[in-house]
Amino acid sequence: MINGEKTLDRPIRWAMIGGGRGSQIGYIHRSSALRDHSFELVAGAFDINPERGKDFGISIGVDPDRCYPDYKTLFAEEAKREDSIEAVSITTPNATHYEICKAALEAGMHVVCEKPLCFKTEEAEELVKLAEAKGLVVGVTYGYSGHQMIEQARQMIIHGDLGEIRLINMQFAHGAYNTAIEKENPAIKWRMNPQFAGPSCVIADVGTHPLFLAEAIIPDFEIDNLMCSRKAFVEERELEDNAFVIMNLKSGAQATMWASAINCGSLHGQKIRIIGSKASIEWWDEHPNQLAYEIEGEPARVLERGAAYLYPEALAEDRISAGHPEGLFDAWSNLYRRFAIAMDLANKGEKANFWFPDIHAGAQGVKWVEKCVESADQGAIWIKY
Amino acid sequence: MINGEKTLDRPIRWAMIGGGRGSQIGYIHRSSALRDHSFELVAGAFDINPERGKDFGISIGVDPDRCYPDYKTLFAEEAKREDSIEAVSITTPNATHYEICKAALEAGMHVVCEKPLCFKTEEAEELVKLAEAKGLVVGVTYGYSGHQMIEQARQMIIHGDLGEIRLINMQFAHGAYNTAIEKENPAIKWRMNPQFAGPSCVIADVGTHPLFLAEAIIPDFEIDNLMCSRKAFVEERELEDNAFVIMNLKSGAQATMWASAINCGSLHGQKIRIIGSKASIEWWDEHPNQLAYEIEGEPARVLERGAAYLYPEALAEDRISAGHPEGLFDAWSNLYRRFAIAMDLANKGEKANFWFPDIHAGAQGVKWVEKCVESADQGAIWIKY
Amino acid sequence: MINGEKTLDRPIRWAMIGGGRGSQIGYIHRSSALRDHSFELVAGAFDINPERGKDFGISIGVDPDRCYPDYKTLFAEEAKREDSIEAVSITTPNATHYEICKAALEAGMHVVCEKPLCFKTEEAEELVKLAEAKGLVVGVTYGYSGHQMIEQARQMIIHGDLGEIRLINMQFAHGAYNTAIEKENPAIKWRMNPQFAGPSCVIADVGTHPLFLAEAIIPDFEIDNLMCSRKAFVEERELEDNAFVIMNLKSGAQATMWASAINCGSLHGQKIRIIGSKASIEWWDEHPNQLAYEIEGEPARVLERGAAYLYPEALAEDRISAGHPEGLFDAWSNLYRRFAIAMDLANKGEKANFWFPDIHAGAQGVKWVEKCVESADQGAIWIKY
Amino acid sequence: MINGEKTLDRPIRWAMIGGGRGSQIGYIHRSSALRDHSFELVAGAFDINPERGKDFGISIGVDPDRCYPDYKTLFAEEAKREDSIEAVSITTPNATHYEICKAALEAGMHVVCEKPLCFKTEEAEELVKLAEAKGLVVGVTYGYSGHQMIEQARQMIIHGDLGEIRLINMQFAHGAYNTAIEKENPAIKWRMNPQFAGPSCVIADVGTHPLFLAEAIIPDFEIDNLMCSRKAFVEERELEDNAFVIMNLKSGAQATMWASAINCGSLHGQKIRIIGSKASIEWWDEHPNQLAYEIEGEPARVLERGAAYLYPEALAEDRISAGHPEGLFDAWSNLYRRFAIAMDLANKGEKANFWFPDIHAGAQGVKWVEKCVESADQGAIWIKY
Repeated sequence: MINGEKTLDRPIRWAMIGGGRGSQIGYIHRSSALRDHSFELVAGAFDINPERGKDFGISIGVDPDRCYPDYKTLFAEEAKREDSIEAVSITTPNATHYEICKAALEAGMHVVCEKPLCFKTEEAEELVKLAEAKGLVVGVTYGYSGHQMIEQARQMIIHGDLGEIRLINMQFAHGAYNTAIEKENPAIKWRMNPQFAGPSCVIADVGTHPLFLAEAIIPDFEIDNLMCSRKAFVEERELEDNAFVIMNLKSGAQATMWASAINCGSLHGQKIRIIGSKASIEWWDEHPNQLAYEIEGEPARVLERGAAYLYPEALAEDRISAGHPEGLFDAWSNLYRRFAIAMDLANKGEKANFWFPDIHAGAQGVKWVEKCVESADQGAIWIKY
Repeated sequence: MINGEKTLDRPIRWAMIGGGRGSQIGYIHRSSALRDHSFELVAGAFDINPERGKDFGISIGVDPDRCYPDYKTLFAEEAKREDSIEAVSITTPNATHYEICKAALEAGMHVVCEKPLCFKTEEAEELVKLAEAKGLVVGVTYGYSGHQMIEQARQMIIHGDLGEIRLINMQFAHGAYNTAIEKENPAIKWRMNPQFAGPSCVIADVGTHPLFLAEAIIPDFEIDNLMCSRKAFVEERELEDNAFVIMNLKSGAQATMWASAINCGSLHGQKIRIIGSKASIEWWDEHPNQLAYEIEGEPARVLERGAAYLYPEALAEDRISAGHPEGLFDAWSNLYRRFAIAMDLANKGEKANFWFPDIHAGAQGVKWVEKCVESADQGAIWIKY
Repeated sequence: MINGEKTLDRPIRWAMIGGGRGSQIGYIHRSSALRDHSFELVAGAFDINPERGKDFGISIGVDPDRCYPDYKTLFAEEAKREDSIEAVSITTPNATHYEICKAALEAGMHVVCEKPLCFKTEEAEELVKLAEAKGLVVGVTYGYSGHQMIEQARQMIIHGDLGEIRLINMQFAHGAYNTAIEKENPAIKWRMNPQFAGPSCVIADVGTHPLFLAEAIIPDFEIDNLMCSRKAFVEERELEDNAFVIMNLKSGAQATMWASAINCGSLHGQKIRIIGSKASIEWWDEHPNQLAYEIEGEPARVLERGAAYLYPEALAEDRISAGHPEGLFDAWSNLYRRFAIAMDLANKGEKANFWFPDIHAGAQGVKWVEKCVESADQGAIWIKY
Repeated sequence: MINGEKTLDRPIRWAMIGGGRGSQIGYIHRSSALRDHSFELVAGAFDINPERGKDFGISIGVDPDRCYPDYKTLFAEEAKREDSIEAVSITTPNATHYEICKAALEAGMHVVCEKPLCFKTEEAEELVKLAEAKGLVVGVTYGYSGHQMIEQARQMIIHGDLGEIRLINMQFAHGAYNTAIEKENPAIKWRMNPQFAGPSCVIADVGTHPLFLAEAIIPDFEIDNLMCSRKAFVEERELEDNAFVIMNLKSGAQATMWASAINCGSLHGQKIRIIGSKASIEWWDEHPNQLAYEIEGEPARVLERGAAYLYPEALAEDRISAGHPEGLFDAWSNLYRRFAIAMDLANKGEKANFWFPDIHAGAQGVKWVEKCVESADQGAIWIKY
């Protein structure tokens, strides 16, 4: 992939819904999608305020005529064009993902959707069916999974380097909401409001990230039952700011999750440790170019992105040689590149023979949050998955 | 404490039961007890094989006449002497701790007992009553608690540096039993046999260590209820090699424990992270001279043993200045020194005004294991503590 | 800077010389320059093989008519156009930098030049004069300096957080050439050949990177004299694979450099530690989002990119919030953005009021290599700078 | 060695000169010597104030009659006894080491001497000759060399794990004297006074420690020539507080040393990195149970004390199993145990077949300091060794 700036014969015509001025998430979507000429940004409904959205679109080079006031107009107007968009990224507030994703699929668009895909399993299943019926690609931006060391972890599991998988310990535990900052910071306020955030705060907001890492890395990651204890430690919070989940997998393995927003002093604290009968691996998103590899009875090793001893699949998307740190933008670019190839294949009636966080991943996240909440709200009891 | 080689006016007359030739635990007890002239080893029943025991005792300078064939003879014969032993350390197999400890107390001896104190809460309560009735000191060798950074952690909690305590995450998760080594290694075989190890393997063997760290550090650490999931991942094992515990504390805080013997690649993996409303601290027993201190919104700090910025209580037992690493033997020596002072005070009818892992700590460990097993064996349900 | 995707009213018309298919350095130049619409790639002489170059240019969207066979044709032909390029990036072999840079400046182009700017101080001085006379901007891609924590380090020095600066310890010490791989790997062969690499291997190739970090961070970094010991440890090598340099600065501070290609097991090993009378800071390019900050007598701290406690200047170019790792591509993008603004200002007859690795930085690197070689070749003696 | 509490048939009769009340160095000598019954403290001249010294000696159990007012009386009086001391440890101020050591050897005593052995090479050579003529053992307390990972490093070199040795980078760079604390702290004042400290501060005080590590680890460590730059950064200091040394070894390898007392924020900063043609190892005294092992082209490894994969020689002195941290006291105890065995062998007319920091190590340190000072004082020129 090094220097493979061009992935497709022509870029996919692409629009954004949301992600306008001042949106960090909008920037990372654009920066990643446009990185290697896989997508061309030709339209958008960038802002709930139409004028501000149009102004923003123009500022980043979008044709003013294709800067739409809202997503409905966007789909309607684009449908009339020969050079209509083929794909759309949804970076609007969580509570709107379902309806926009549904509308996009109905309009025949491929979709890249911010997580969560939606709030309810029935909605997720509806979207899955719709996408499958239409042969459309839906990518969900579990962005951390685009780091190459995640692919290395996956290949190590597949090749049996760890032996039989026994434990998967996951955490995404930051400390940013250790006080009631939502009272002062509107950008955070919605996260504690079920109307906008859905039924959970940290389980959904951060917990689903390492959950997807586990799913991506471990091919037979299937939950049999789980129990979840959640709690709001900061007074007056409607949604939990900390949760522990224990899961029994169908394979006989066990998994744990710690999702938190009150882990003082931690920036992200997103880690996944996978323990097999022979060895363990551990990855930390704040230092994504490294993967700890600990074979029992041998000295602990640290694997480095780009190193020749990695599996070829883990080298395939490198943009620069080992030692030079790649960051989150590079991980996202890798995912957007896979989205593009998958969309291009779908346009030709073919299926991608590689993994990416797709609609099933999105639906899985929705179901997992639902089950965690169900368990927690009944007193942290065991729930069949 | 630096250079404070002599703690007492005269050393306490002391004996060992168990801990003879080839015993690692015997060596650390002796090395720590004798370090600073607080104890004098004058008698012992060092081995289940009387001759071997006598031979060993002589080799380390014990009067042959006071190398006894068993603990009963030891107590009986010493009772006849004017210069009888005053204290005894018990380093025999776990299943014998209760009876020996009881006999020692009945004989009027202070005791240092290897953990576990016993296997059942009733037994523990009986020993507590006996010790209190006789005014005798019982120290339990939760040896890691003697590291000075544990005292620093305790002082930080007491001084409110962390704010209100919310979470305590504990683990002692090594990888040494990732295969069925008990089949070949007799030194490990008993650990998987309930007859010798008691009702639990890792919960009791390793989990109780960080549990006591939490109790030592956090004055109001009181469990309200808990749930425990335990499992033997290695086939044919009678006792669990991995366990997860979630605890609700009476204070409203939550605690978790991960006890494991299948965490491949980890030597000890004994860590404790305490999260308050303002800051977190984290300690790892393999690097005991450091304590991570992470105030939310500030750069992460690492506190170092011996540094002038620590609380005076955390400097009081330093044997050498900062930068020079102290190790586990130094931590044990600190505890044995406290045991000696407490015994000396008890001899004078006084009580120690400092903490150490005492009989209540020992009893607490017994009860916690019992409750964990009770929860796990009913399907990992919540159990009132 | 977050979301500030557009820096200029219109992008600068830009060409590349070299950096065609298979060139890692070409990719990082393009990926960074094009990231935020500051540059528009409209022409190029991408390859020493004209056809291959044209083919490559077309593949990344350059007008075939503006894919030139060589740099001379490029400058000549572009000069005839109204929409001529305004800037050019030079990513050709080192031995050609001087002549191409000179030609570009003579043609009135702004330049971004790979290091080294040239091989000799007289050449560098000539280029400096030329650029100044023409009012043109020359950026030199000391890419690591674009990491935001370098700006933080600079601000800390400026604000006196370290006190008086006493020591600067620098190293860029990798292990990739621990054997004679140049015999088999043509991509490395030239590095050991003075004809193509210039008078030095590691001093120039890697040593100049942390040297510029020191210059960027420390405003009064001025060398008074230096001594350099260099050596080729691998047999038959013409150029050194390891060097040590000691420098006395005019300020009274001392600096050291370790440049190496035989430091087995190290990927980059690029580190800079700056020691003042009050505190030290240390940065490692493989983990660029962190900066160690060690105040004597206080616990060691780790500062994190994006954190609110940093100086505003160190936050100005963040592309994403703290915790999310930024990588080398983001650092380069920051530099290219500064190049663009400086070029735009120069087009208007104004000067940039911010720092970037400019032609003086490039010239400084050339002089430093020359002086190091001079010292080393006379037996590692002290040389006036 | 685990549990090998008794090394000799009977302990060596031993005295201390210096190291009385309030002396940290006295405590570590006693704690190490007495640890495993290899030495018996039977006499001493503990303090320059005879009464205080006697009082201290009595307090730690020494016969009052053998608490002498000074070292001359000690040697004279002990010579009259049948049960005279056999060995003496010298922990007096540096400027007295030579005369006391000489007197001890002349009195037929084995010696353990604090570093430096003396201040001048002629003196060192005199002591070497005297010790050899008398068949006496002189141990010098380069205490860090007693850590087991140093033995592991040595074995790795001997077994060729690193290939041909190319570079040895050493440092002992702390920050404790970053200000003129000697003006207020009498315990430090002498270190900056040539009359008491000898011709150097940091070169001798800290630099000789990692130098001996290099000598212990690398069998053919022989300096051919060296250059040293030293400087006092804190005003009015008579002796250097920072020094850099570059050494060419006879083997063709190169070595560097950074000795400092102004490295703000560093506690010890004692590190040694040895780079061979195949791999590097690195050790840091503040975390002495670990040894980094980096084979070029393979993932970096961390070796752990006590692990079964170490060389047998590196396991021979373990006092407790892997994972449990050993500290500096354990390292010193290892050395004192070797001193005891060597003395016992010498008493029988035999030579030790194992290494320890002996009189040659002590003499080497003296010579190295002398040569460094000679180079530095002539303007940091190259000096033949």
